[in-house]
Amino acid sequence: MLYFDSDYMCGAHPEILDALTKTNHEQTIGYGSDEHSTNARQLAREMCGTPDADVFFLIGGTQTNATVIDGLLRPYQGVLAAESAHINVHESGAIESSGHKVITLPQKDGKITADTVRNYLKNFYADETWEHMVIPGMLYITFPTECGAVYKLSELEQISDVCHEYNIPLYLDGARLGYGLYAEGSDVTIKDIARICDVFYIGGTKEGLLFGEAIIAKKGLLTNFFTLMKQHGSVLAKGRLLGVQFETLFSNNLYRRISEHAVSLALKLRNGFIAKGYQPAFASPTNQQFFTLPNTLIDKLRKHASFEDWGPRGETHTTVRFVTSWATTEENINELISYL
Amino acid sequence: MLYFDSDYMCGAHPEILDALTKTNHEQTIGYGSDEHSTNARQLAREMCGTPDADVFFLIGGTQTNATVIDGLLRPYQGVLAAESAHINVHESGAIESSGHKVITLPQKDGKITADTVRNYLKNFYADETWEHMVIPGMLYITFPTECGAVYKLSELEQISDVCHEYNIPLYLDGARLGYGLYAEGSDVTIKDIARICDVFYIGGTKEGLLFGEAIIAKKGLLTNFFTLMKQHGSVLAKGRLLGVQFETLFSNNLYRRISEHAVSLALKLRNGFIAKGYQPAFASPTNQQFFTLPNTLIDKLRKHASFEDWGPRGETHTTVRFVTSWATTEENINELISYL
Amino acid sequence: MLYFDSDYMCGAHPEILDALTKTNHEQTIGYGSDEHSTNARQLAREMCGTPDADVFFLIGGTQTNATVIDGLLRPYQGVLAAESAHINVHESGAIESSGHKVITLPQKDGKITADTVRNYLKNFYADETWEHMVIPGMLYITFPTECGAVYKLSELEQISDVCHEYNIPLYLDGARLGYGLYAEGSDVTIKDIARICDVFYIGGTKEGLLFGEAIIAKKGLLTNFFTLMKQHGSVLAKGRLLGVQFETLFSNNLYRRISEHAVSLALKLRNGFIAKGYQPAFASPTNQQFFTLPNTLIDKLRKHASFEDWGPRGETHTTVRFVTSWATTEENINELISYL
Amino acid sequence: MLYFDSDYMCGAHPEILDALTKTNHEQTIGYGSDEHSTNARQLAREMCGTPDADVFFLIGGTQTNATVIDGLLRPYQGVLAAESAHINVHESGAIESSGHKVITLPQKDGKITADTVRNYLKNFYADETWEHMVIPGMLYITFPTECGAVYKLSELEQISDVCHEYNIPLYLDGARLGYGLYAEGSDVTIKDIARICDVFYIGGTKEGLLFGEAIIAKKGLLTNFFTLMKQHGSVLAKGRLLGVQFETLFSNNLYRRISEHAVSLALKLRNGFIAKGYQPAFASPTNQQFFTLPNTLIDKLRKHASFEDWGPRGETHTTVRFVTSWATTEENINELISYL
Repeated sequence: MLYFDSDYMCGAHPEILDALTKTNHEQTIGYGSDEHSTNARQLAREMCGTPDADVFFLIGGTQTNATVIDGLLRPYQGVLAAESAHINVHESGAIESSGHKVITLPQKDGKITADTVRNYLKNFYADETWEHMVIPGMLYITFPTECGAVYKLSELEQISDVCHEYNIPLYLDGARLGYGLYAEGSDVTIKDIARICDVFYIGGTKEGLLFGEAIIAKKGLLTNFFTLMKQHGSVLAKGRLLGVQFETLFSNNLYRRISEHAVSLALKLRNGFIAKGYQPAFASPTNQQFFTLPNTLIDKLRKHASFEDWGPRGETHTTVRFVTSWATTEENINELISYL
Repeated sequence: MLYFDSDYMCGAHPEILDALTKTNHEQTIGYGSDEHSTNARQLAREMCGTPDADVFFLIGGTQTNATVIDGLLRPYQGVLAAESAHINVHESGAIESSGHKVITLPQKDGKITADTVRNYLKNFYADETWEHMVIPGMLYITFPTECGAVYKLSELEQISDVCHEYNIPLYLDGARLGYGLYAEGSDVTIKDIARICDVFYIGGTKEGLLFGEAIIAKKGLLTNFFTLMKQHGSVLAKGRLLGVQFETLFSNNLYRRISEHAVSLALKLRNGFIAKGYQPAFASPTNQQFFTLPNTLIDKLRKHASFEDWGPRGETHTTVRFVTSWATTEENINELISYL
Repeated sequence: MLYFDSDYMCGAHPEILDALTKTNHEQTIGYGSDEHSTNARQLAREMCGTPDADVFFLIGGTQTNATVIDGLLRPYQGVLAAESAHINVHESGAIESSGHKVITLPQKDGKITADTVRNYLKNFYADETWEHMVIPGMLYITFPTECGAVYKLSELEQISDVCHEYNIPLYLDGARLGYGLYAEGSDVTIKDIARICDVFYIGGTKEGLLFGEAIIAKKGLLTNFFTLMKQHGSVLAKGRLLGVQFETLFSNNLYRRISEHAVSLALKLRNGFIAKGYQPAFASPTNQQFFTLPNTLIDKLRKHASFEDWGPRGETHTTVRFVTSWATTEENINELISYL
Repeated sequence: MLYFDSDYMCGAHPEILDALTKTNHEQTIGYGSDEHSTNARQLAREMCGTPDADVFFLIGGTQTNATVIDGLLRPYQGVLAAESAHINVHESGAIESSGHKVITLPQKDGKITADTVRNYLKNFYADETWEHMVIPGMLYITFPTECGAVYKLSELEQISDVCHEYNIPLYLDGARLGYGLYAEGSDVTIKDIARICDVFYIGGTKEGLLFGEAIIAKKGLLTNFFTLMKQHGSVLAKGRLLGVQFETLFSNNLYRRISEHAVSLALKLRNGFIAKGYQPAFASPTNQQFFTLPNTLIDKLRKHASFEDWGPRGETHTTVRFVTSWATTEENINELISYL
């Protein structure tokens, strides 16, 4: 069986697991004060070109989003986000459970534009009743988006300009950040992200770790954040597990190698489909590829491969998603294409 | 100056103020355990034809919505509502501040249809990822809606059917309930409302009281609700003020008289505009009337009358709202029309 | 029957009700933007000697406490308060419902000392695990306390010093503020309170208004507070009702007259009991008086007067509370004493 | 260096790490729907003798407590707990952040008695103002407590009786459950716990896992709990990591072996101290041992061993804690004792 369901179907990349095994018997203090965590934070700062950034390691994406957003907002504020944003759709109301509204904006392929944000903010403050409404307190974007779209550098800079204009922080959800940075044609580097965003996170769960997300924040912006993390259940007792994993991910180009490996195989998959006459449903230059295929072909492929429907099943055709990861091989792609 | 800004610009209807004055020196225990409150609850039950309903008196609409919704939902649930609903737009995130998402549905003139609700619920449970999403736990509707639309009895019954089908309570925001019940052509009675809804409230603030909203709930549905009200800051120390006011409102047909008075003058106003060649922006049979007028006319009218823009001011025309209440007189209408 | 149950058993002081009646037909815009509210805010600033203070009018004490505390704290912070504090005992968890812990301190007669606060804060930050605990973010005190005790000016200043030392705001619950300011032997003025506290409120509900509490806050401390009030359901649509009432209370010495009247009758009551051989249970110089009386006497008194037990009924003796207000007369006191 | 700081200083017990390594390349679906998780849930049910219990795997203790308590309570309810309870002291207000008060009870060595609970509940409902207070909605206890005390079976049954009497669920925090079950002289089995408690959790983080806590709940009590877990950030994308670990822990007596190993070495340590003339500070039959030692001895020991102060450092003597785990060896104990 071939597996293209998601990028979190295996355990950890072998180098990650190896590091955990090698350090297993070390005795360290808990809660992220160990040397591996300290080292990993330093490596993150270097990679991002932000020597004084605050770095925090959390376990999963939903808790990272919920904790950061709770840390940035006052109770009368909400977070601006695309209507399709993960925080609006697939986090079971984690943001609202901290008391904050997700204020939704129209999007295309999961992306929102600077103009959309500016118009919302302009109209908001032009409305005489604005004090009766949730005050937009920050902006949430995703890079790449859930359907694999990637912002251009100029788009991010324009978005950032609006945020500065209205004095609200910009937060970027980087659950699959590496697959965006090393996407086909991407002109954005992690240093750009670190420069442009007030807070962002580098996702580990979908990039070869057992689990783990690394928050990079402008110094001092997230006050008393350890206490807030603890309150949100985001602190790992054996914090060194996050330290060891990120230390490894941020060394020897592993983050880049994992990202590039998955992206290049995804593009190979895409090109294989195109060569057989199937066009992508969305233009994704990342490790996720989407095709609207005949149901008969889907049923045939599923005898050999596992992958997800993207949206409801259609009468004759259905959009499906193929995801690659560090665990995908060139042979896997070749075999899949051979069934077309 | 003529005032058509809203239905809460004066103090109280004279009969209400008179009752407060007459009872001012009575000594009663607090928090709604006094005899006036007991009597008012009984009058509400009789008016609604629900002898065993639970009745609670609160101070304002936002707190009523927030307290009821918090009482009906579990933490993993949200409330279904029209995108234009007051709880989604003009309550500063009061629902989210209790941890609950407002799940928005498309609407027309503020009304949602049974089909819209059914489709949402059907698609929700058909989605394989539904457990990652906020579970729809109740439905919120408004009668009449913010732009004066009124549900027909059959529409309410169809909505109620969907709620029963999916076992979620139906809650009706009746901030201006009387103006809907006594609207032109309305086929809905308060007994219908009480039969169809699991919880609803009879708004007093906009119907001649100083303040006050009366919740009518199916017996036992809102458990420990006094404690929840207290937690939400919705309990008035001198609860008798609510008791006295509702006792008066629910006696001598006052509720009906206030509603009919305001509606009939609103229709007179509407007909006056139509006679001068202006068509209503929405078909409202209630105490609110909306017209899209030339800005020149608006500016001229504002020398004599005060009223609100409804939405942003246009280049040449703007939609405006005229609201009547117990304090509006036939002379006020005649004078306004004379300026057209 | 004589009534000594509480200071909120009647409607409003006649001058208040008169003002409401006189202004009843005025047409004003809502939500506190009317001229009466503006004037009342100015009168409050003058009375407090704080020309640039922010002033907000809310409806009741629990909602005032919940809204202010939510406005002052970040999510990882809690509020320090006496174990017996109203917010810890009798507000149904309103503070926790906004996500904040009430961190309790030992007290005597409801008062806490500067040393108690300083020791808590010192020990807190000396504890190596403090980042795993709720961070103390403000201090809540009551003046007078629930059992009628009054801080001396020097005690308040010492408490304020600790708050400055640890950079946490001091909030004073003044539900019965006037009865403390005009208590027997009090050396504190409202200008002292306004100078010493970061935020406090002047209670109206227990001082002759139908309802209403006036928050006085250091300028700019409570950001976007109208929106937060709206979220907490603390905004009254007909805000002018609060404006008119406080305008009246803050004019013609009414606040002082009401306070002094109630205190002087309470002291007369106390002296009457002492003359008959009964000693106060607590030393209260305010409008509340507490006595531990034989149950036989209590039963006899209750044939003529209504008053509350303070704590559980004892086998032979029980502590009871007598409260005076603007509605209490000298004859009431004389008659009560005559039954001893 | 010898390490006695805590029972979560290493990675995982070798058998756990081995299982993770062996299954690392398996491709499984996420969020706990994999076969390892299914198997682990079944093993948990068998071990507990509760064939129809609901079993959920979460990541850490604070998030487990917060999610369970949020799942059991209505918004107007709080959780009864010892004043020293972890949820009251060391979880940064996680319970309050979900809106619930921790209602504290007096304790001894972290234990509370059935009488304490009954008295609280009896007095609560006897208080005429109970509707103004947070309603006690469940009871939280810890086994063993933070200072190593263990309830007798009869004590647990008496506590359970009170909970039934007042119809509130009993929740047991079992972060170190195994060390209590296999404590010296313990008469409680895991089947007793499962029979007596409505919900409890079997801690893995402190018993040899990388991380993980297993909730065992009476069938149907925790409705829509996956969604609530997701909302609380308690769902692991690679849920199989929890499945694999608990599958291993619940097989081949590993849970018992780890628990007994740590307890027996802790008792050996205790006896070594006693033989040298030092008496335990508390009577702990578990893997934690507490001694009040001369500061000079503590300073000498710390040249060779790492361990924590328990409370503030005294002038001449300080209470310290020694904790053993699967990673502690007999040689470690002998060496420590040799320094006395």
